[in-house]
Amino acid sequence: MTTGVLIREIDAHEFVRVWPIFRSVIASGDTYSYAPDLSMEDACDIWTTPPSRCFVAERNSEVLGCYMLHPNQPGLGNHVANAGFMVAPGARGQGIASALCAHSLEQARRAGFTAMQFNFVVATNTVAVRLWQRHGFQIVGRIPGAFRHAQHGLTDVYVMHRFL
Amino acid sequence: MTTGVLIREIDAHEFVRVWPIFRSVIASGDTYSYAPDLSMEDACDIWTTPPSRCFVAERNSEVLGCYMLHPNQPGLGNHVANAGFMVAPGARGQGIASALCAHSLEQARRAGFTAMQFNFVVATNTVAVRLWQRHGFQIVGRIPGAFRHAQHGLTDVYVMHRFL
Repeated sequence: MTTGVLIREIDAHEFVRVWPIFRSVIASGDTYSYAPDLSMEDACDIWTTPPSRCFVAERNSEVLGCYMLHPNQPGLGNHVANAGFMVAPGARGQGIASALCAHSLEQARRAGFTAMQFNFVVATNTVAVRLWQRHGFQIVGRIPGAFRHAQHGLTDVYVMHRFL
Repeated sequence: MTTGVLIREIDAHEFVRVWPIFRSVIASGDTYSYAPDLSMEDACDIWTTPPSRCFVAERNSEVLGCYMLHPNQPGLGNHVANAGFMVAPGARGQGIASALCAHSLEQARRAGFTAMQFNFVVATNTVAVRLWQRHGFQIVGRIPGAFRHAQHGLTDVYVMHRFL
């Protein structure tokens, strides 16, 4: 499925390679709360400024997907990681999100996190919900109408969690 | 209960008056995830940098409590407000948190928010949980062990929500 995909960490200097995916994902307005017109500079800040860390999945030097890993809370909540994942529209259905998720769980464990939490899984994004469930996440909360979906309007959002 | 309490918005220049309350609340390590040794400068940034707004409850020019109001998410989630409340240890049991909460709900409505969400209500903080419930909030999620409580160790955290 994901043969030939290499996942590695990048810094701010390489974020320009992530940006085409990031831009297309937020432009669709159906999965992330980021403003659809967020600038590359702001996106780069959010995804690469420590403690946030950014990783890419590449095949033949082409970036096919990416994720951001960071503590979900500061201080007394910083044992719980948070992550966000994006896959290039043309690279879906190849197991890349699954490979990124598995990689993030391992990176989170290595960094000393003891759990991972997603705060904003859009309920209509059933492919993602099922994928996270296969990776051990449970729905632990449901926020009514927390997302203004480009097609569906006000849409519920799940909080998902797993221990590491 | 709260006669003589005036609630008003402040900017960063007055945050020094909030700081004694903020410091004592986070030092106890039983309600907020902020690092107990967070600096005043960082606290001020978090609570007063737009879009965050900071309000104080005063009586005879003494600050007895405070709250922060801001969007819980950027962009397509910014119709949901988030707020955090603190009351001076010596001023508890006087209805100040309740007055602050009512004020924040009205301010959130005026600012155009259509809901308010709390992401991190420590489950052992039963006084707060009951107070938010009296102000119309419901528990919509429970995150296991998301808070390292100074006395109780790993403690669950509630996500609470109400429409405005």
